[in-house]
Amino acid sequence: MTDMISKKAMAEIEEGRGISRMFSDAVALTEKFGAENVYNFSIGNPSEEPPEEVKRAIIDELQTQKPMALHSYTGSYGYADVRKAVADHENRLFQTAFTADNVVMTVGAAGGLNLMFQVLMNPGDQVITFAPYFSEYKCYAMNVDAELVLCGTDENFQPRLAEFESKINEKTRIVLINSPNNPTGAVYSRDILKKIADIMERKEREYGLPIYLVSDEPYRYIAYDGVEVPYLPNIYKNAVVANSFSKSLSLPGERIGFLILPSSLDGYREIYGACNTMNRTLGFVNAPSLIQKAVGRCLDAEVDVKGYEKNRNALYEGLTRIGYQCMKPQGAFYLFVKTPIADDWEFYERAQKYRLILGPGSAFGGPGYVRISYCVEYDMIVKALPGFQKLWEEIRTEQGK
Amino acid sequence: MTDMISKKAMAEIEEGRGISRMFSDAVALTEKFGAENVYNFSIGNPSEEPPEEVKRAIIDELQTQKPMALHSYTGSYGYADVRKAVADHENRLFQTAFTADNVVMTVGAAGGLNLMFQVLMNPGDQVITFAPYFSEYKCYAMNVDAELVLCGTDENFQPRLAEFESKINEKTRIVLINSPNNPTGAVYSRDILKKIADIMERKEREYGLPIYLVSDEPYRYIAYDGVEVPYLPNIYKNAVVANSFSKSLSLPGERIGFLILPSSLDGYREIYGACNTMNRTLGFVNAPSLIQKAVGRCLDAEVDVKGYEKNRNALYEGLTRIGYQCMKPQGAFYLFVKTPIADDWEFYERAQKYRLILGPGSAFGGPGYVRISYCVEYDMIVKALPGFQKLWEEIRTEQGK
Repeated sequence: MTDMISKKAMAEIEEGRGISRMFSDAVALTEKFGAENVYNFSIGNPSEEPPEEVKRAIIDELQTQKPMALHSYTGSYGYADVRKAVADHENRLFQTAFTADNVVMTVGAAGGLNLMFQVLMNPGDQVITFAPYFSEYKCYAMNVDAELVLCGTDENFQPRLAEFESKINEKTRIVLINSPNNPTGAVYSRDILKKIADIMERKEREYGLPIYLVSDEPYRYIAYDGVEVPYLPNIYKNAVVANSFSKSLSLPGERIGFLILPSSLDGYREIYGACNTMNRTLGFVNAPSLIQKAVGRCLDAEVDVKGYEKNRNALYEGLTRIGYQCMKPQGAFYLFVKTPIADDWEFYERAQKYRLILGPGSAFGGPGYVRISYCVEYDMIVKALPGFQKLWEEIRTEQGK
Repeated sequence: MTDMISKKAMAEIEEGRGISRMFSDAVALTEKFGAENVYNFSIGNPSEEPPEEVKRAIIDELQTQKPMALHSYTGSYGYADVRKAVADHENRLFQTAFTADNVVMTVGAAGGLNLMFQVLMNPGDQVITFAPYFSEYKCYAMNVDAELVLCGTDENFQPRLAEFESKINEKTRIVLINSPNNPTGAVYSRDILKKIADIMERKEREYGLPIYLVSDEPYRYIAYDGVEVPYLPNIYKNAVVANSFSKSLSLPGERIGFLILPSSLDGYREIYGACNTMNRTLGFVNAPSLIQKAVGRCLDAEVDVKGYEKNRNALYEGLTRIGYQCMKPQGAFYLFVKTPIADDWEFYERAQKYRLILGPGSAFGGPGYVRISYCVEYDMIVKALPGFQKLWEEIRTEQGK
């Protein structure tokens, strides 16, 4: 029966098998023990509530605007007034000079990234990203028959520059950066990003072709300890930003995000024009309309990052006190923890005995680690830590340590 | 500079050039003469307001539900309760026995169609549709490197069966039906649809492979004179329904629709499973969440079809009285009118003298016709008819008639 579905669907299902197993295990464990007795650290659904402004903005739009102004097709790029508000907001924060014509409202960042891949890459082209990485990037590349090339990172999950340079070739069309990073929580430093930009500029000259830097930054506003999250269009001429309100306003289900396409891009006019067609023909058509209007009014609103920070601290301190090794994340809401046994899938399995659902690092291009999503209730962290402790002791005893 | 964008993007832009020209001409004419003096019959944005229930449902959800229940990821398939409500609604109307597991909530019908194309077709496969047709189908096929094969229709825009049969071959994976039809307003009769199903069943046996019938039916509930719009899963085992609330509830900007995947489909389990992965990896992730909840509560609501009917009658009677030839449409909100000169692009150009923006039939696989969208204010029709009259007389005089 397997030939009822396309080869691409089969390959992408295979690619996502790790993530799917994680989800189905979580469901099975929850059914068996009840949600309150399962410590599910496997999902990336924000746990902080959307700011109250969002609700007020939606209701106000509904009560004051004509329905046709809220629910009609918005044009492929999105509402001009919302795009202008987004451009102005970026300009205020990053001293840029964007207009509405540098913005495409998208069906989340995932919609924006797929749009960019479709517009910029031909079959056989390559996109480089840094592992560990959000595993669906591979599928986005497969959608356009392009190849995702992985570059390693160091012990702090910062890109390895020599390896990066060696992996760029004449087929490299996109370098995809995700900082703050899922799954590691690393924030790439300005120094590293400038060196990445230098290498790319050199390679552009060498091959006589633009290499676009696409910055997937849904976690931009979830960063801690005052760490800087550098704005890539200010560092590199051919940089595109893909952002979303999924995490910054806790609206992942609403599928609302945007692309920033600076006028400095080589081929800006063609690329922006292609977005008009491809956003439609890929089936997105336009970013959902009412929520476009709402987020356009809430660009300065924020979720409570302090809640995530409290979780981060409790989990980081709790785990390292037990003995686990882990980099203290500077952004996003994930800890990427070294597993005390080499096989992270085995560790994942054994953690279920303590009703802990984790994310095996292998499913994120980071074997030997597990991803722990701390976008959860604080109390769950407190209740889960003794399980982490027992698991640690059990393994250390086996290892004779 | 054209090699900055992908070959596919270039090809799809080329494919949509006709539609784009129509839009840009409308903008230019409007800027020149003012919106109130331009008769824009080129767009398919519903003109009847969404039913009041939609607004009430959105506000009620926001005021009574926890934000996390409204704005989190819904899972790829959509909310289980909404899918159940959609299944129940179809069951009531069509005496089917669907469950939530026969439903995928999608980013509009365009999102659903792209999902089906990606799941069911390999490069080189073929999808057959009947011309005239909604021209973006060609791009959806191009997205998966499949070929859109056109089959002709008769003078009432009903499919030509012998031609249809001759065009099916071992590469045919999908037959795509759009009834009520954009751009003709034709509704395919039960008799014709049964014959199409018979042919497809015969061909399935001949080739030993399923051929899926995909029914794109956003206009299902916009039909006149009591005409029957047959439900394809009741006629053919391998039928999939792609629907949306864009027209039935006048919510095209909200990007909300659904797929019905009957359990009778060959490979149902694989296909439904593939939707879970592909809806995510294509970048849709899930249908927008809040509006899912809202439409789930408004399945019995309706826009005022009488408004469209009044427009249809006024325009049909007005145009045929002048002398234009046109089939009286049975559904959707389009008239497909024979042009008194052979070249429909020339007719389109000349109509602009009377500030009429029409849709050249060539852009919809129907040369020698223009599409007139009557989802407009009734008054605009009344004011526009004298222009149609003058254009007719001008052309007839030239032709010496």
